[in-house]
Amino acid sequence: MTLIAAAQFGPVLGDPDANRATAAGAVRDAAAQGARLVVLPELSDSGYVFTGPDEARGLATRAADSPTLRQWRDLAAAHGCVVVGGFCELGDDGLLYNSAALVDGSGTRAVYRKAHLWDREKLIFTPGADAPPVVSLPYGQVAVMICYDLEFPEWARLAALDGADLIAAPVNWPAAPCPAGERPAEVTKVQADASVNGVYVVVADRCGVERGVDWISGTLIAGPEGYLLAGPVLADHPALLVADCDLAAARDKRINEHNDLLADRRPELYPRVTSG
Amino acid sequence: MTLIAAAQFGPVLGDPDANRATAAGAVRDAAAQGARLVVLPELSDSGYVFTGPDEARGLATRAADSPTLRQWRDLAAAHGCVVVGGFCELGDDGLLYNSAALVDGSGTRAVYRKAHLWDREKLIFTPGADAPPVVSLPYGQVAVMICYDLEFPEWARLAALDGADLIAAPVNWPAAPCPAGERPAEVTKVQADASVNGVYVVVADRCGVERGVDWISGTLIAGPEGYLLAGPVLADHPALLVADCDLAAARDKRINEHNDLLADRRPELYPRVTSG
Repeated sequence: MTLIAAAQFGPVLGDPDANRATAAGAVRDAAAQGARLVVLPELSDSGYVFTGPDEARGLATRAADSPTLRQWRDLAAAHGCVVVGGFCELGDDGLLYNSAALVDGSGTRAVYRKAHLWDREKLIFTPGADAPPVVSLPYGQVAVMICYDLEFPEWARLAALDGADLIAAPVNWPAAPCPAGERPAEVTKVQADASVNGVYVVVADRCGVERGVDWISGTLIAGPEGYLLAGPVLADHPALLVADCDLAAARDKRINEHNDLLADRRPELYPRVTSG
Repeated sequence: MTLIAAAQFGPVLGDPDANRATAAGAVRDAAAQGARLVVLPELSDSGYVFTGPDEARGLATRAADSPTLRQWRDLAAAHGCVVVGGFCELGDDGLLYNSAALVDGSGTRAVYRKAHLWDREKLIFTPGADAPPVVSLPYGQVAVMICYDLEFPEWARLAALDGADLIAAPVNWPAAPCPAGERPAEVTKVQADASVNGVYVVVADRCGVERGVDWISGTLIAGPEGYLLAGPVLADHPALLVADCDLAAARDKRINEHNDLLADRRPELYPRVTSG
């Protein structure tokens, strides 16, 4: 079993030094509990509610020399853990990306650029052109995707087909109307992603009202049967969730003598899912 | 708005006359409340827990001369409604199918053969080779799929891409362990199918222990935002759920100024979802 953590906190728009300090505190707290993987929110170093591309550009860093990723590497090395978090990326092509990195003590293992952009992100960021990375770690295979990506079942499926045991997902879930007593639909969709693929899904959401936007603050850890192992927090305050996860066990997709979550697919019947 | 109904009842294994009478009562009750579409459980005429193919074969009928489908046509004609229900089908090819039909007063509009077979069904039935049908009704476009099909997000997606506003799904959900206080994962997956595609999903489950198997009895009606409009029943007794549904409204997939549930897909990045 491997202890996995998800950290919810409230980045301060335009104050990356403060945000990195907050993130470092969360990683240290998680590591102190024994966590081997710590997931941080989307755009954790910059904040989210930009006025436009100029403001985002002023906060974006290149992956190769990002102080955020360098900090995560140092933390990972010091604590023997892995950090997955969102950062505001300036591409070598000069374009802006809503990205997440998976970083261990050796450095950046993967950078993922959000492929499905939400709302005004389309005015600021370029969508990614690559599938979610799946990174081999000592305890299992970890995929990375971001927020609205989780609402496209094709995306979680792709990660599972590529061998992911766990999907680490930085998010910033803006609050939306939800019937009393119901779980937000975002949470339900994550549970389904986990269940139909037999994978863990670890979501780190944010808190803290930003320019009038508030958040679901739905940080959670879902198990491969789709039930929640921790969270959702659903409260506007920092939180650190942990759960013991058996990533190797998630690799076995058999659910009874005759059924297997992935082998039961009928891909020959799905072609239109991949055409416009 | 169109009133939609889902009927939960307990078919008696091997007594199709009794099961048709039960179904007829449910359709009449639903029509009396004003329902224009009534969904019945999977294998509603035969029962489910067969000892093997021989027993199923003895209860299977050809779609062209099935007393079950003839009854649904007569009921639909008498009450001005549409019936979707599961029946045990003998194909013209001599093979057995776990099928569902959509029947209106004019007769059988579509027969669908379950494509994703559950557990021992694989020893009895041949899986279907066709996508879910999408049938144009006066109030909207209705797709048909069956039980375990709902757990393949590709399948619900295919129906939505083919224009479905509502998925009618006969099911027999065998009971399975579920943490206290949690909704069964089957329900969560249906909510996600509805939400990611912006469609209604109407599930008619069964009740009544059969050869030691009991059932979730999770009959429900989910709205296009993934929240439940009725159910889940989650109790071992007959039930009739109804909800007012605006199928035409479900056709608009825009969720804000910049996002559209289907147009936001990145099909060019999903090719491996359709390969083995």
